[in-house]
Amino acid sequence: MLLLNLDKGSSVIPLYRQVYNQVSALIESGNLKPGSRLPSSRTLADSNGISRITVTKAYEELLWHGYIESRPGGYTTIRSKRRETIFTGKESGCGIDWDVVTTPGCCKDQQCIEDALLRPLKRGAEDDFIDFAWFDIDKRIFPYKEFRRSLITALDKYGNDLFVYAEFPGFRPLREFIASRMSYHGVLVDPREILITNGSQQGLELIVQVLCRPGSKVIVESPSYLNFLELLRNNDVEIIEINVEDGGVNLRELERLIARHRPSFYYTMPNFQNPTGISMIQSRREGVLNICKKYSVPLVEDGFDEEMKYMGKLPLSIKAIDKHNIVIYVSSFSKVLSTGLRVGWVVTHDSLIRRLLYFKRFSDISVNLLTQAALYEFCKAGYFESHMRRINRVFRKRMSLALQTMKDNIRNQNISWTMPAGGYLIWVRLENIMISEPELMAAIESFKINVNPGSRFYSYKPDFLCFRLTISKLNEIEIQTGLKRLALALNKVYSERGIPQA
Amino acid sequence: MLLLNLDKGSSVIPLYRQVYNQVSALIESGNLKPGSRLPSSRTLADSNGISRITVTKAYEELLWHGYIESRPGGYTTIRSKRRETIFTGKESGCGIDWDVVTTPGCCKDQQCIEDALLRPLKRGAEDDFIDFAWFDIDKRIFPYKEFRRSLITALDKYGNDLFVYAEFPGFRPLREFIASRMSYHGVLVDPREILITNGSQQGLELIVQVLCRPGSKVIVESPSYLNFLELLRNNDVEIIEINVEDGGVNLRELERLIARHRPSFYYTMPNFQNPTGISMIQSRREGVLNICKKYSVPLVEDGFDEEMKYMGKLPLSIKAIDKHNIVIYVSSFSKVLSTGLRVGWVVTHDSLIRRLLYFKRFSDISVNLLTQAALYEFCKAGYFESHMRRINRVFRKRMSLALQTMKDNIRNQNISWTMPAGGYLIWVRLENIMISEPELMAAIESFKINVNPGSRFYSYKPDFLCFRLTISKLNEIEIQTGLKRLALALNKVYSERGIPQA
Repeated sequence: MLLLNLDKGSSVIPLYRQVYNQVSALIESGNLKPGSRLPSSRTLADSNGISRITVTKAYEELLWHGYIESRPGGYTTIRSKRRETIFTGKESGCGIDWDVVTTPGCCKDQQCIEDALLRPLKRGAEDDFIDFAWFDIDKRIFPYKEFRRSLITALDKYGNDLFVYAEFPGFRPLREFIASRMSYHGVLVDPREILITNGSQQGLELIVQVLCRPGSKVIVESPSYLNFLELLRNNDVEIIEINVEDGGVNLRELERLIARHRPSFYYTMPNFQNPTGISMIQSRREGVLNICKKYSVPLVEDGFDEEMKYMGKLPLSIKAIDKHNIVIYVSSFSKVLSTGLRVGWVVTHDSLIRRLLYFKRFSDISVNLLTQAALYEFCKAGYFESHMRRINRVFRKRMSLALQTMKDNIRNQNISWTMPAGGYLIWVRLENIMISEPELMAAIESFKINVNPGSRFYSYKPDFLCFRLTISKLNEIEIQTGLKRLALALNKVYSERGIPQA
Repeated sequence: MLLLNLDKGSSVIPLYRQVYNQVSALIESGNLKPGSRLPSSRTLADSNGISRITVTKAYEELLWHGYIESRPGGYTTIRSKRRETIFTGKESGCGIDWDVVTTPGCCKDQQCIEDALLRPLKRGAEDDFIDFAWFDIDKRIFPYKEFRRSLITALDKYGNDLFVYAEFPGFRPLREFIASRMSYHGVLVDPREILITNGSQQGLELIVQVLCRPGSKVIVESPSYLNFLELLRNNDVEIIEINVEDGGVNLRELERLIARHRPSFYYTMPNFQNPTGISMIQSRREGVLNICKKYSVPLVEDGFDEEMKYMGKLPLSIKAIDKHNIVIYVSSFSKVLSTGLRVGWVVTHDSLIRRLLYFKRFSDISVNLLTQAALYEFCKAGYFESHMRRINRVFRKRMSLALQTMKDNIRNQNISWTMPAGGYLIWVRLENIMISEPELMAAIESFKINVNPGSRFYSYKPDFLCFRLTISKLNEIEIQTGLKRLALALNKVYSERGIPQA
């Protein structure tokens, strides 16, 4: 007979839990042996003067936790070697060699994964470390109060309706707001021509899924957005590069590449390109559109920082001059409001939107509805508009300060950098120096700053040194302090490894 | 000279906006002709007695809205035919034939897309219509107050930190909660072995991306989860089916199929399988695991409703008995708390988690952080636990009522259905009847109820009639009323089209 020591008057530990605790302890200690039978729930209840329901509940818990099992014939036995039959992670071996069964697009080098995923975050979190590498936004200027208010408005207004499946293409009022906002950039669009995605990255992935197969080719600027290059690699798409120059790509070269490779699409960031910060001039925009039209090649325009035109006048987006639905436009709230909310969108012809939607529907069904509704209330209240005015003002100042600080402190004709008219990115190039990229990065990091190594933005290993600076999450003091450190680091590197010129 | 009628004292409309409004109106009305030059900002400012900054701001707006353009030489002209050079959706033709450039996996039939995406939602929204088709959860039992409180706790606690990029694998405290919750189901797991995804659907997609290529094969139960079949089709994966019977699949048949096809993985839902509601018995769980181990074939276990074991005892998950890391386990908060939040997870060996993470990182970067933090606070406060107790109680009652109502009202030996021990799904099969599936659906819908046609859960067109009922979003009255209507509909169909048996 199994007699337990129960505190029947306890209001702290429910009776069934006491039964569970004592029986599991008896099993753990080996007093109840694997394979042996437990008394029936009726017997245990009777012998301990408790209800059968209590015992049944305790047995259910024991079953759930893997201590006991049901046997044919209706009795219950202690499970053998519980600890060994459960998942123990690295301690036990793998019955499957994941290197063998995973696709080639899947990066196999654990170190490479570690680097890509974790390293930038680690350094950036150190004390007194200034991070010019990680392209997140400055959380200190996030309009917290306004967003919180909008979230609560959404909760009050829509209640429980926020917690069921969203409309697949995205919350309609938010699509309507985006459509009206797009008209600020010269694009007239119907909400049906908009698909809301988990950030623009998902928009890009859906486009790749719908337009590419393994072995397809895509033309990208060189250098280009590193997460997009990785996305193409993950999907076994061949990357064709065209140099980005001041003012945009060379049109004759683009036409040559398109005619030769017949790519699935051409991918461009016409404003403050990532990583260079360079913008495409109006005539090139018209030029690339005409070439794409001539060869029936879709043009994917990434307008992730369309809103950040804070210096001078900039041409309209390519989508705005696209009469023939050649352009697939992607954008996002990430780089102007919040990266954590994961809300972006795609604009294209209705018939392609449906295809993208079909993939999205079976990829992850829909975008988080609560966030979409909160974002809509935020925009509707005018907070987005005023936030944009504010961050345009803030970053006009920060970018000017950054460029001025570099000009004042980096006095070396071998070092050049771009002069962006908006956005957050500056691209630096070094000439006449004998140092490897890892050595350069280590030298820069020894001054407690971080930059993003240039080679990551190319599909090949470039034979020159360059890197990307982002000022997106830094304030004026950090920008000034950090760039002075950069100047010191580069001076040191040149004094030790520079090549004197004839 | 361009003289404007400005209200310089207005506190309602800013001066630049007045300039913008009047100039754009002059362009729209044709009073300012396309191609003609606008006065310089200095001239317009002087002639109207306003500041040059005001004019510049108005001109920027005009530029953004596509009314004017900058010309070499620094002057500004009215843009020609504004309305025609902007995106006009369906009115204008497409320069690209999307049928030609999209991948074969991409469904091309617009009607099919329309059906898959929109139809179920439309009917379900009608008045007095009872929807047994759309597998969403009952929003009336969503714990709104508790979730709202948790959301506000998260906002207060984490502040602006919620709006930047999340840790890629998911918010760590939430992964820790999930790990501890998994131990309730016999799975001991480290938070590093968990990847948080946008619902379990994204977990499944990542697994397909990492383990399959076009032409790969996957073994699924027949019938199986329709969104998963569609996902495989979108990725050009060949579907191999094995019949699901009471108690699970036939082990000898599974081994034969695995040996013959060497699939990328075997996909199973051992509890209350979607669509049949059938659960796999313990010995089969051990059997399928051993077969997968023998052939080094990953076993993908979908535990989307693991928490809904509300009737009797059920065996542990397969993951709980997996000593050799054969099993990739996916689950989600969708079918137990909220489909709109889009939070699910994958549990597998650390080295595979990293590969899945690598794909996720370049698919859509991370899961919405605000939602993850709110969900964590919700779980930590004990609300998840009490919600689970509540919905288990509620659905034990609803499912019993559903099965009893069917038993009492459908008295026809040609109609059989499954008896689920949990979850939300009932599978109905009809024999000896001469009617097509669309006719059957129409007949059922004429009684103002909806079911999900069975053929959608197979990769082939089955030669028998079946359908899925979900009670997930219905209360007791709706279940009772709806199933009585179903009985009437089926009686009518049998009296008109039934085949009398010998």
